[in-house]
Amino acid sequence: MEAYLERAQRIVARIDELAAISEDQNGITRTFGTKAFIEGRNKVEFWMKEAGLATKIDSIGNVRGKLLCNQADAKTFVIASHIDTVVNAGKWDGPLGVTMGLDLIEQLIKTKTILPFDLELIAFSDEEGVRFHTTYLGSKVVAGSFDVDLLEKKDPSAITLREAIATMDGDICNLEKDAIKSEDCLGYFEIHIEQGPVLYEKNISTAVVTSIAGQQRIEITFKGLAGHAGTVPMNMRNDALCCAAEFIIETEKYALENKENIVATVGKLNIINAASNVIPGEVICSLDVRSADENILNKSSKHLQNLCKKISEERNIRSEWDLIQKTAPVTCDSNLVDLLSQAIAQENIQTIALVSGAGHDAVPISAIAPVAMLFVRCFKGISHNPLEDVELKDIEATVKISDNFIQNLIKKYNQ
Amino acid sequence: MEAYLERAQRIVARIDELAAISEDQNGITRTFGTKAFIEGRNKVEFWMKEAGLATKIDSIGNVRGKLLCNQADAKTFVIASHIDTVVNAGKWDGPLGVTMGLDLIEQLIKTKTILPFDLELIAFSDEEGVRFHTTYLGSKVVAGSFDVDLLEKKDPSAITLREAIATMDGDICNLEKDAIKSEDCLGYFEIHIEQGPVLYEKNISTAVVTSIAGQQRIEITFKGLAGHAGTVPMNMRNDALCCAAEFIIETEKYALENKENIVATVGKLNIINAASNVIPGEVICSLDVRSADENILNKSSKHLQNLCKKISEERNIRSEWDLIQKTAPVTCDSNLVDLLSQAIAQENIQTIALVSGAGHDAVPISAIAPVAMLFVRCFKGISHNPLEDVELKDIEATVKISDNFIQNLIKKYNQ
Repeated sequence: MEAYLERAQRIVARIDELAAISEDQNGITRTFGTKAFIEGRNKVEFWMKEAGLATKIDSIGNVRGKLLCNQADAKTFVIASHIDTVVNAGKWDGPLGVTMGLDLIEQLIKTKTILPFDLELIAFSDEEGVRFHTTYLGSKVVAGSFDVDLLEKKDPSAITLREAIATMDGDICNLEKDAIKSEDCLGYFEIHIEQGPVLYEKNISTAVVTSIAGQQRIEITFKGLAGHAGTVPMNMRNDALCCAAEFIIETEKYALENKENIVATVGKLNIINAASNVIPGEVICSLDVRSADENILNKSSKHLQNLCKKISEERNIRSEWDLIQKTAPVTCDSNLVDLLSQAIAQENIQTIALVSGAGHDAVPISAIAPVAMLFVRCFKGISHNPLEDVELKDIEATVKISDNFIQNLIKKYNQ
Repeated sequence: MEAYLERAQRIVARIDELAAISEDQNGITRTFGTKAFIEGRNKVEFWMKEAGLATKIDSIGNVRGKLLCNQADAKTFVIASHIDTVVNAGKWDGPLGVTMGLDLIEQLIKTKTILPFDLELIAFSDEEGVRFHTTYLGSKVVAGSFDVDLLEKKDPSAITLREAIATMDGDICNLEKDAIKSEDCLGYFEIHIEQGPVLYEKNISTAVVTSIAGQQRIEITFKGLAGHAGTVPMNMRNDALCCAAEFIIETEKYALENKENIVATVGKLNIINAASNVIPGEVICSLDVRSADENILNKSSKHLQNLCKKISEERNIRSEWDLIQKTAPVTCDSNLVDLLSQAIAQENIQTIALVSGAGHDAVPISAIAPVAMLFVRCFKGISHNPLEDVELKDIEATVKISDNFIQNLIKKYNQ
């Protein structure tokens, strides 16, 4: 068996090779369907072939490599992550899971491990959704939940998704055929950087993900009355920004009080016709609320909506609350979570469980298969940024844990 | 003597004539030095000439009309306001004072009133400062405080102020000569719409201005740490927007508690790299603080700066406080204020005193002469907006008050 350190080093070397393929010279940008994306995809397919997998590029541009067991009616266990990036990305978000999955399968091949299921490694083509403002294009096709209406969506250069797929030699007639049927899918495993600071703060290499938070995205409009900053006395004002500020503070307070259960963020705020000498008449802001528990998410959102109403009414401000997007939480499969926790314990590493606040390809896949995710610590929790970093020792630990996990899984299905 | 109503109607007719002269067809825009501005200026000069005044267009484009008394060494009393506008302006802001001044002088001529001083009516060419981002160009030349460095300032089309003045046939060699010497100037009177809601709310036609508020304009930067809105727990955040929001609320609270003395406004707020799913890492906002009392203004600004520091430190946010602009309050001349209050009382109108929160041409002029201002009620306090409106009955009342004021002034100098 190959040394763990060497395996970890090869994983980093492959991540660096992928990172060198970018739409622009400074930084890493590899969005769905671009020339850089196709080059990166081809590299991943080359690696899979080299490892001995039966590969294909599917209709949406996912790279898929199969390691078949010798049973005719075998079900498939999927290991996956994505290879597209945000603009000016870090190199670990996505590629870590793909290259670690590849390494894991390479070891199974080298050690001539007899599998009780087929293994499929997938490098999803679009998780970030940068180009067409829609996430999970790759995993939705695999999950059979791809919405064909999206084909007419346009990127900033007015190229439709339909055209982009054709450019990549994808055949939209195969979109349905490329789905994995629920009855054929044994489970799904994804390794991903945490993209948050908890592991870094707690000084632990990895965590088991117990669930992926549900999310509500809301647009709130506060309408007061614009006025001259010098001539309208304080007690005659209907300042939309002061109203928004009070809502922001009260939202923060509520989320802090419920910090085990929710996060709430106002990330965008625009004052309409802003000027330093004008009392803000209208403010539009975003609100992002997440929770692993759907009831808590709904309850919290309702509470914040009432809070918004109350604060606005007290200030004689009209407020509008528009729910823009709503996704339900995903609970990871308890059997897979147990196997993964066991795999961590075998390395004498403290097992901690985390809720993923970020969405992942595991979300659409959860509709067709039990899912599990392993989070790897990243530097200060920084992600979507060139400063994104992972330590070699954490990759080494993750290699060991992944080996244990797949062996535990094989054992379970051989029983 | 002509009926007050007819005079008020002519004033409105002239304001309408000026309002029809605009850079664009929809709305009123007549910024310094444009074709529309020159057309408007020529109209005002025509009216002054028609009334019998000795007119000139000075180097900065002010229209100046003199009614001389028969004393060789007479001093000058100035009546003025401005004829430039903001973009998509109302029709009353500026032109009301010019046309009412013209009406007042026309009556003095018609009634063959013997003056103990020269009267100069000035229509200032630039009070709003829209084109070159600098206010009071017109009145600063008259006050002898024009800063020649401004000549190199460029408008959005890269035309310098120097070039704009040449286009208007202004001669920059005369900028100094066009100033009125302090020893020659008896006083200054300006009629202007309130641009605030106090008279409207109190249901009173006019108010005597006792002072023009001083102002501090500050730019505040809050630097926290950007992060993923889903993955960073509430208690691990350094949210720059939450910090700004707390400051906004505390500033509002402080200003409300001191509402007789200050107004404070955050009018601009920008989140750097804002996205709905990103915790704001950096926020830049404006703060505008005004007071009629310089000590209170300084004390308040200092208090708010300390508040900003305290809130930021508690949240582990770095904050920067940059004073961008500082203007001292101007106190109106007590003798002129008394004469004006008396003029109002003569009409059995309740006399109320107001601090002007907005700046006016009276600010630079106050350096060379005692100044007085009369505010006229405007609809709901709305200004810098096509909805700006003044009722005819208030103009009629102001005509009467102006007549009384000038008669009181003449009496005083004849004593």
